[in-house]
Formats: sequence, C-alpha cells, structure tokens
Amino acid sequence: MKNKFVEPDYLVDLVQALNRLPGIGLKSARRMVYHLLQYDIEGLEILSKALINANKNLIRCIKCNSFSCQQICQICSNPDRDNTILCIVETPSDMNVLESSKIFNGLYYVLMGKLSPLDGIGPKELNFEHLIERANTDKNILEVIIATNFTAEGETTAHYLSDILSINKNIQISRLSRGIPSGSEIEYIDSNSLAWAFIERKKTKISK
Amino acid sequence: MKNKFVEPDYLVDLVQALNRLPGIGLKSARRMVYHLLQYDIEGLEILSKALINANKNLIRCIKCNSFSCQQICQICSNPDRDNTILCIVETPSDMNVLESSKIFNGLYYVLMGKLSPLDGIGPKELNFEHLIERANTDKNILEVIIATNFTAEGETTAHYLSDILSINKNIQISRLSRGIPSGSEIEYIDSNSLAWAFIERKKTKISK
Repeated sequence: MKNKFVEPDYLVDLVQALNRLPGIGLKSARRMVYHLLQYDIEGLEILSKALINANKNLIRCIKCNSFSCQQICQICSNPDRDNTILCIVETPSDMNVLESSKIFNGLYYVLMGKLSPLDGIGPKELNFEHLIERANTDKNILEVIIATNFTAEGETTAHYLSDILSINKNIQISRLSRGIPSGSEIEYIDSNSLAWAFIERKKTKISK
Repeated sequence: MKNKFVEPDYLVDLVQALNRLPGIGLKSARRMVYHLLQYDIEGLEILSKALINANKNLIRCIKCNSFSCQQICQICSNPDRDNTILCIVETPSDMNVLESSKIFNGLYYVLMGKLSPLDGIGPKELNFEHLIERANTDKNILEVIIATNFTAEGETTAHYLSDILSINKNIQISRLSRGIPSGSEIEYIDSNSLAWAFIERKKTKISK
C-alpha cells in the first residue's frame, strides 16, 4: 500500500495490521487506530495483551479439535454430556450456534474447515485421520451426526465422511434434515429448499 | 459480558478487546478472532507487534501536536512547506483530508479534540497554552487558518481560538468559508447551508 498521507510508519503499520482483519477496510482501520491513540490507550494495551495471550495459550483440544486452554476442552471433559453421540461441525462458530440453541447435549468434533479441492483442501489437510481414529477407538460412540453446512463444499464433506465412517458398522451415521425453516412462509422460500422439503417429506400420523 | 458460549477464557478476552474498537460489535469481534486463529496466525502476530510498536514509539510532535515517531514530525520538519501559515484542525484525520486535497502547503496544529464543556473538555484539557505559545513565539507565522468543524462544538472552539489568538495583532486570523459544496444542486441543499451561502455571498466582477 502506498500511503497517500504523511503518517508515521508505526501508525501506518498498525493501520495495515487491522486492515488485514475480515470486514475491516482501510478507512475503518485508520479510524480505529486514531481512536485508540487519541482516546483509548488502555484499550490498545488490553488488545495487545489479549493477542499475545491467545497466541501463547490457545491450543487444540485433543478430543474435539476446537480451541481450548487445556488439553481437553470444557465440553469434552464435562461428565454431564452424552458421550454416545458425536456431532461433526465445520467450525467452532457452528459449534457455538448449536450450543446456544441447547438442542444437543452430546460431544463435538470440529473439522476446522471443509473439503475444497479447488483450494487444495483435502482429507489430509483437514486431518480426517484424527476424526476417524476418534470415532473408531472411542467405544462409547453409537451415533455420529454430520452437521456440515448445506453448501456444495459442506455436502461434499458430508458425503465423504459418511462413506468412510460407515465402514464401522457399530456406528449409526446421520445428517441434519433439510427443509423449510421454522416460522417461515412457503411463499418466500427458494425453490431449492422447497424441492428438498418435498423430497424429504415425512409421514404424519393419521387419526383413525 | 456473560459469555453464552463455552469458549476458552483467552479467546473470550480477545473477543472483548476487539469489541472495544469503534464500530466492532460482539459478532464481528468473534468472527475476527476465529479468522485469526483458524486462518491467519501470522496476521495475529503482526497485529500484536504493530500494537506494541505503536504504543512504544508514537509520540506527539512538539510543534504540531500530531502523532509522530520523531520529536518533530515529517510535515513540520519539511523545509518546502510555507511556514507563514498555520492551519488549526481538530484531529489528525482532518489533517489527512487536507493533505490529500493538496490545497494547503503550510503548517498544521492539531488540537486533538474540540471544546465540549458538557463533556468536561475545556481550554486546559486541550492544552491551548501550547498552541498560543506556538502562535506567538514563532515569528514566521503571519496567518492562522481555523479549520475546526462546522458543528456546534467546532464553531465554539473556532470562536474561542479566534478571540485569544487575535490579541496578537501581527497575526491574521481566518476561518474556512461556509457555503454550498462544489458540484451540488441547490434543490438538494439543506436550508441551513443555503442560509449561510446567502449571508456569506461574494461579489462577482461586473463587466462594464
């Protein structure tokens, strides 16, 4: 970046470092830097320390592959969780959404990505070995729910995982259901979702 | 903030530190943190270093009061600039805008704020002494242009500065002109700006 303003180098470096964050343009980055320097030096120090601490102390949970401060994360080490069901998600954010919905009380495995051959991301890059080993050696697991996204890459990942995990006949493999979102009107649903809702329709009980 | 997700403490600390930045909500902050941890650890380290460097090395220029790595900043130490005119602005961002417009080649003084009695910001908090001393002891200065914003606080600041600086009879005090922005249509101008454009109208040359 050629700097069109006469600004001190260290200030420009900080602007560029913030500009690297997702969703932060040059203008917002510059605004943040001036805000920190003019009004919130304490905030600057807090951010600086938080970055160092996160970089130094956050590791991957050896069981679920998500971020953790301990070898085994809070969810994986919680004895109240149902250790017979393992839910596979793409990212920690997906796990957070499931957690806040309180619909699931089993354990997770976080892929930290999805299969994306065009970007050079295959089973090796996502360390599927680790997941397969986890699913096959943990004798408690009876069911694996694949909760990858319903995008092209997410579906590819789900198919692939379903294939390799179903070699183990002791485990039931399932996938989240597709259909019409709760609370929505059929008039406004895209035709793709509507098609899936028809294909995967469920029988209702018939009163006799 | 009560954390509704089961997330490691160091991760939550970083989310909160980023949440403190202007324009960054909790959701964006969390997205940034996961982005850094999953895909851009290098970016995390760069940001961390940039913050430390900025905090350690950025000082205020002793002449213009803006941020600088040296005692006297690049603009103030540039011999090609017109040292007879001093332009007073509220913030370094205002200075940047003037610089990029290339309309002004004199020197600056950055107030780093504006008079705002309701927030407890008076002449003392903005260190007006420093500006007055600068204007009165620098014998090169012939004109001071007050370029504070045309908001209530900016106008108050301009009036106040104009009063105290005009005690020195050797200096011409001026203020940026008010009026209709270049390129705009009268139909869409707010009545306040229109009123000022009438009050501060200029005589045009009359052909004889």
